[in-house]
Amino acid sequence: MKRFLRALNGEAVWPPPVWLMRQAGRYLPEYRAVRAQVPDFVGLCTSPDKACEVTLQPLRRYNFDAAILFSDILMLPWALGHGLEFKEGEGPVLPKLRDEAGMAALDPSRVSDRVAPIMETVRLIRAGMKKEGFDDTTALIGFAGAPFTVACYMVEGGGSKEFAAIRGMAYSQPALFQRLMDTLTEASVEYLAAQVEAGAEALMLFDSWAGVLSPNLFRQHVIAPAKRITAALKARYPHVPVIGFPRLAGVMVGAYAETGVDGVGIDTGTDLKLAASMLPAHVAVQGNLDPLAVVAGGDALKTETTAVLNAGRGRPFIFNLGHGIVPPTPPENVAALLELVRGA
Amino acid sequence: MKRFLRALNGEAVWPPPVWLMRQAGRYLPEYRAVRAQVPDFVGLCTSPDKACEVTLQPLRRYNFDAAILFSDILMLPWALGHGLEFKEGEGPVLPKLRDEAGMAALDPSRVSDRVAPIMETVRLIRAGMKKEGFDDTTALIGFAGAPFTVACYMVEGGGSKEFAAIRGMAYSQPALFQRLMDTLTEASVEYLAAQVEAGAEALMLFDSWAGVLSPNLFRQHVIAPAKRITAALKARYPHVPVIGFPRLAGVMVGAYAETGVDGVGIDTGTDLKLAASMLPAHVAVQGNLDPLAVVAGGDALKTETTAVLNAGRGRPFIFNLGHGIVPPTPPENVAALLELVRGA
Repeated sequence: MKRFLRALNGEAVWPPPVWLMRQAGRYLPEYRAVRAQVPDFVGLCTSPDKACEVTLQPLRRYNFDAAILFSDILMLPWALGHGLEFKEGEGPVLPKLRDEAGMAALDPSRVSDRVAPIMETVRLIRAGMKKEGFDDTTALIGFAGAPFTVACYMVEGGGSKEFAAIRGMAYSQPALFQRLMDTLTEASVEYLAAQVEAGAEALMLFDSWAGVLSPNLFRQHVIAPAKRITAALKARYPHVPVIGFPRLAGVMVGAYAETGVDGVGIDTGTDLKLAASMLPAHVAVQGNLDPLAVVAGGDALKTETTAVLNAGRGRPFIFNLGHGIVPPTPPENVAALLELVRGA
Repeated sequence: MKRFLRALNGEAVWPPPVWLMRQAGRYLPEYRAVRAQVPDFVGLCTSPDKACEVTLQPLRRYNFDAAILFSDILMLPWALGHGLEFKEGEGPVLPKLRDEAGMAALDPSRVSDRVAPIMETVRLIRAGMKKEGFDDTTALIGFAGAPFTVACYMVEGGGSKEFAAIRGMAYSQPALFQRLMDTLTEASVEYLAAQVEAGAEALMLFDSWAGVLSPNLFRQHVIAPAKRITAALKARYPHVPVIGFPRLAGVMVGAYAETGVDGVGIDTGTDLKLAASMLPAHVAVQGNLDPLAVVAGGDALKTETTAVLNAGRGRPFIFNLGHGIVPPTPPENVAALLELVRGA
């Protein structure tokens, strides 16, 4: 079994398997060259050849233990018929879903056609991994945004500092909000199942804004949907592990184990060893180096990497960042990081 | 002893003492009327009569167990000579301190003159509380931003989503960054001591961005300075309790007890009971109702308030929000909240 999958199977693999969130991205010149060939980001996500190419690029440089489908968490709402535009320097811009009319515009029946190019990408990636000799050791991760985080962007109309609109909606229009969550939960199951059918060997649910919710709402809109999604997928694909990433969950990380996921992503601000102690021993932890330490390099990178390695040692653990790699990261610092992890 | 101070003295007071972060603020029409009389926010913070008036306003409506000096965490860097402007709808705008020249522009020797109007405000508030009959039961809190959070605004030049510049500085220019932290730590001690001399009965340290730091940096730049500040103040004023608010600290909340504070503010996303279980039994917890639940009112307010009350019952506990009250909050919902808390 591939090292990455062994860790998710509950084994303390050492040195730990390693990959980095957003490992295919703007810090790589070869990524920027491909990105320049398409007019917009959605175009890149729906061009199987190009999305496959950028997925494979970081493997060629760093031989990571996992590749992750190049796509975006907002491709699912896009496939449901919700508008999506990426504005330079501004991030995603979407219509604001705040009423029945917004809900009515979502059409789950169109998803499978709209995501067909993404499934083609998954097939091309697995074929490319085989062709280039990565497929024996590197696992391919499929992913979706978790329903709450996807809903954040749909309700707020983009990113936000406080997420006041969506939290207000959860309190003031609980029935409408629950319908939105249900629609996203069901669509996520089908979307992730299709990725498995196309070749994904593990799945990840990104809940970037889980931490803005009160404990009650966290249970309702983070834990409950992740549990439903995980159960539905495990019923169909018992051997495909699921990683949940409830970012900023803080002390709620222990409760998150109720979702039944095989691995939990830990964010940068969290003591990984302490978070791990709040999870069952067979659940893998994944994380959580500060991406800014990779930008800095040198002593700071060494100190922070050593701390993460020490925190994860002796239990199922996948080395990763605590948040996505950032564009100013020097690629040679990633090489230095991998040397530290692999020499551990 | 006043109920608020009894809780900070380690007593499980019931129903719990209650106050709300930003209880003097834009959700109150009488606040907006005073705010309209001054050209800018710094002007309000340096007008003792007006700052006193807005501090007292919420006591008259709600008879809170604590008042908090009306000021801003950025008044200390302003007093050190760092620029500060509040732009409508944009928040604070400051010069970006990123090098020796920026450090050299800070002048601790000018602080006490510059903050003199703020100390006058503190004296006026205590006098006003006595005159209006609040001083027998309501305690006055003085405060400062914690050094890391103040440094965030000074280095980033305002708010930020990712705080990449300051985290980068902590990694890449550790000596310069430590000098900035030392300067802020020392100035905070003097600033808070002056507030006690002027009449503050408890002190609070707001570390709004503590959660963006890796565990190593959290220990260096959140716990260590809060510990120094608390120790220095307790040496001079052993009976003045200190509350720390390391927002988004997550699982690091237990380690934060090493600071020696008497109370710990808990943010909205955290399970207050679980966070409390990670702290020594004599340390009060303060929090953590979602401010958006107060905007919503009705059933949502009742459910969320009950959850917080249940979580804090049986230990030293001060009811509060998990973040500042927001401008769209209907004042009558605050009245409904207080009825729930006082009827507990």
